[in-house]
Amino acid sequence: MPKEGITPRATDYSQWYLDIVRGADMADYAEVVRGCIVFKPTGYAIWEAMQRELDDRIKATGHVNAYFPLLIPKSFLLKEAQHVEGFAPEVAEVTRASGEDLTEPYVIRPTSETIIGYFYAKWVRSYRDLPLLVNQWANVMRWEMRTRPFLRTAEFLWQEGHTVHANEEDAERETLLILNEVYADFAETVMAMPVIKGLKTEKEQFPGALRSYSIEAMMQDGRALQAGTSHNLGQNFAKAFDITYTDQNNTVQYAWTTSWGVSTRLIGALIMTHSDDEGLVLPPRLAPTQVVVVPIFKNDAERSAVMAVVEQLTAEWRGKLRFKVDDRDNLTPGFKFNEWELKGVPVRIEVGPKDVEKGSVALARRDMPGKEGKQFVSQAGLTERITALLDEIQQNLFARALRLRENRTFDVFSYDELRAAVDKGFARCYWAGSREDEQRIQDEFRATIRCIPLEQPDSAGRCVLTGKETTQQVIFARAY
Amino acid sequence: MPKEGITPRATDYSQWYLDIVRGADMADYAEVVRGCIVFKPTGYAIWEAMQRELDDRIKATGHVNAYFPLLIPKSFLLKEAQHVEGFAPEVAEVTRASGEDLTEPYVIRPTSETIIGYFYAKWVRSYRDLPLLVNQWANVMRWEMRTRPFLRTAEFLWQEGHTVHANEEDAERETLLILNEVYADFAETVMAMPVIKGLKTEKEQFPGALRSYSIEAMMQDGRALQAGTSHNLGQNFAKAFDITYTDQNNTVQYAWTTSWGVSTRLIGALIMTHSDDEGLVLPPRLAPTQVVVVPIFKNDAERSAVMAVVEQLTAEWRGKLRFKVDDRDNLTPGFKFNEWELKGVPVRIEVGPKDVEKGSVALARRDMPGKEGKQFVSQAGLTERITALLDEIQQNLFARALRLRENRTFDVFSYDELRAAVDKGFARCYWAGSREDEQRIQDEFRATIRCIPLEQPDSAGRCVLTGKETTQQVIFARAY
Repeated sequence: MPKEGITPRATDYSQWYLDIVRGADMADYAEVVRGCIVFKPTGYAIWEAMQRELDDRIKATGHVNAYFPLLIPKSFLLKEAQHVEGFAPEVAEVTRASGEDLTEPYVIRPTSETIIGYFYAKWVRSYRDLPLLVNQWANVMRWEMRTRPFLRTAEFLWQEGHTVHANEEDAERETLLILNEVYADFAETVMAMPVIKGLKTEKEQFPGALRSYSIEAMMQDGRALQAGTSHNLGQNFAKAFDITYTDQNNTVQYAWTTSWGVSTRLIGALIMTHSDDEGLVLPPRLAPTQVVVVPIFKNDAERSAVMAVVEQLTAEWRGKLRFKVDDRDNLTPGFKFNEWELKGVPVRIEVGPKDVEKGSVALARRDMPGKEGKQFVSQAGLTERITALLDEIQQNLFARALRLRENRTFDVFSYDELRAAVDKGFARCYWAGSREDEQRIQDEFRATIRCIPLEQPDSAGRCVLTGKETTQQVIFARAY
Repeated sequence: MPKEGITPRATDYSQWYLDIVRGADMADYAEVVRGCIVFKPTGYAIWEAMQRELDDRIKATGHVNAYFPLLIPKSFLLKEAQHVEGFAPEVAEVTRASGEDLTEPYVIRPTSETIIGYFYAKWVRSYRDLPLLVNQWANVMRWEMRTRPFLRTAEFLWQEGHTVHANEEDAERETLLILNEVYADFAETVMAMPVIKGLKTEKEQFPGALRSYSIEAMMQDGRALQAGTSHNLGQNFAKAFDITYTDQNNTVQYAWTTSWGVSTRLIGALIMTHSDDEGLVLPPRLAPTQVVVVPIFKNDAERSAVMAVVEQLTAEWRGKLRFKVDDRDNLTPGFKFNEWELKGVPVRIEVGPKDVEKGSVALARRDMPGKEGKQFVSQAGLTERITALLDEIQQNLFARALRLRENRTFDVFSYDELRAAVDKGFARCYWAGSREDEQRIQDEFRATIRCIPLEQPDSAGRCVLTGKETTQQVIFARAY
């Protein structure tokens, strides 16, 4: 029987997603501000947990945080030809302030390469100033036509790293360091979301980049979600904004820059990687509440006996586990179980009068709903048991997502196989086509090359479209 | 002899402030974006440290974080009469997006009571939904005419709390909880900045508030700086946005709301509370780097002997102290000392070849520049010594700032004494004047009533202006 308020995935995946967001109380539609959402406390707490983990990794790899202006002179966008083409159509413009028309309008940053490039040109003088390794946590705005909570909203939150280097090799090393050590590591170990690391094709790369890399994850419906990007911008922005430095031989050189970002769309990725028809499922490392305790009683005597045990059990959890005791009076246990399932809390502990007698508790794991994931265990050693279980759930979620991806990734060798594969998941194939060929497949199958995986086969094969021999494999998929 | 690049406070206080900001590399002027600054890594790191401390206190008092839209429909500002009067003159407007004119313009939030009020009206239904205790970390924009780094910029960063309560008593308790337990506690124990807690006069209160409270600090030039505000908004915004709830008797009631905020202007307050003519001075609890180690050597043999000691000493600091080892090759020790003084690092350790022989180090404290604050101490027990010294510096900075405020606070009993006092610092006096009287003093002396301190005298006295007997004392001062 489907859960009330949650459309099953098999019935309508798209509606299921919206039901999960509403059921867990993660966001509200800001219908009065076009395309925007409110990040409600439950949704925002997940972003805070992501921020802490990402920020630790960004700092551990030598970066520092800074903050640059929200507004960018409109003329700045025009300085890099591809960049303006990519972003000008979707910017919001500030044209008036203090009741007067501005002589030059500003745009609200859709991304900050241009404004940061302007400052870097002032700050970078000598090879001694390099590398310059700065990150920013900020809101950005892209006036999207179709919006969807977390996945695509006009305003969203993100981090954007912007670095400057002396040469191509250093810039490339930085770009890949972020892809591997920060983004892929975070996605897999913290989000429990397996990702494919790869290079974007020229058609799909960031407007103004020399080379773009991404991590791509498979959602439960088989579609791809680009979960993070890292760009080697070459000397394109350095030339547009005149970021130069004097090298050891006293020669003035254009610098090399990179940029890289992940955003609140990761919350959408998290939902579509792990959640089920019962509601949100959160990996323990990101769950704002890892354990909820529901005391069960029918009268005051039972209540005080049960609560005494609950207090004793939770006393040693402080500083070790993130937990909540749900002792609300006016609600039934069933109502509470349902609510915490909807909110994705990884472990639920139930304590009733019988448990008080027997020295037991009921322990339910969210990644296995229903009877399968529920057992009665001793109160003795409960803390260690929960700690181990949280690890197990984290591993299980990753393994399950990886299995899904492996089951839905198809090696394809013909046009027809490609067409069939992208209906179900990822199509992996040899590719030697042109940009036009790529566009043609997009037009016909609504699938794009998600990436050229960093991990490539040892032997050559024939391009799925042109039949040309090539050593390059790519992943085609429909994408969010 | 004045330090190069730092104008002494006595010569030009205003220029000194700008020199400190530049000397510590805290900010850059965003001359291409009117009135904005870049928060450079050194400045932003201080804000990050402040955020962590404030966020802990905000959460410990029962609040959760959320995020609301940057843009507010312009019409929303008009719904609360005083609010629009206060903020409409200084908003930036978004009138175009995706290349088209918008039918209704948006303003970039100058503060979020209106947009948050709109959502709270949807979320609050029953007394069971109350209190609603939410905080937001965000950027805001007020198109100011005169700007000054950190103290007054068009865009700034802040937190804004917005809460909903069932009645006046609960709202008032919340307003004072934030003032006392969050803001005053943070200012005094973390920033080492003594503050006076008080009520704002009607003339000085937040546009739309029932009652505004603030914490007021004295800067080294005797002027006041409002370091945080907490507002009981009464039912004003509840009525403007229709925030109602059904009470226990099934009657629909207007709710009571509060709002409260502190911003990056605290960085300006921090500078003007502690810094000196040698540069920035940071209290240890907020210093991104608490200890800098400068190894001193003339050749490779000395270098390796010194660095061995440095590594041994710092090995046990990890996780206990925030420290840096400045082993840059191409700079003299004197250059390094100067740079770390400019950046306000609380403790400097110097290790040279003689220290290696003697088992000693030189230890210099930033709050006492020059010989007075420098001593040679044993390498044995250094970690404990530094930990204790950091506490001592934190206490000393607070005590020094408190002494300054006490020396520059004058009890005044006449109009002439008031005039003389506000030239030097705070004037404390009995006050029973009208709003017009307050305006008159502002026009004549450029001083305003900073607050009516929560701490009031036991006995009555005569109003400094009208001579009427009253029990109410106020603080007059010139303010930033």
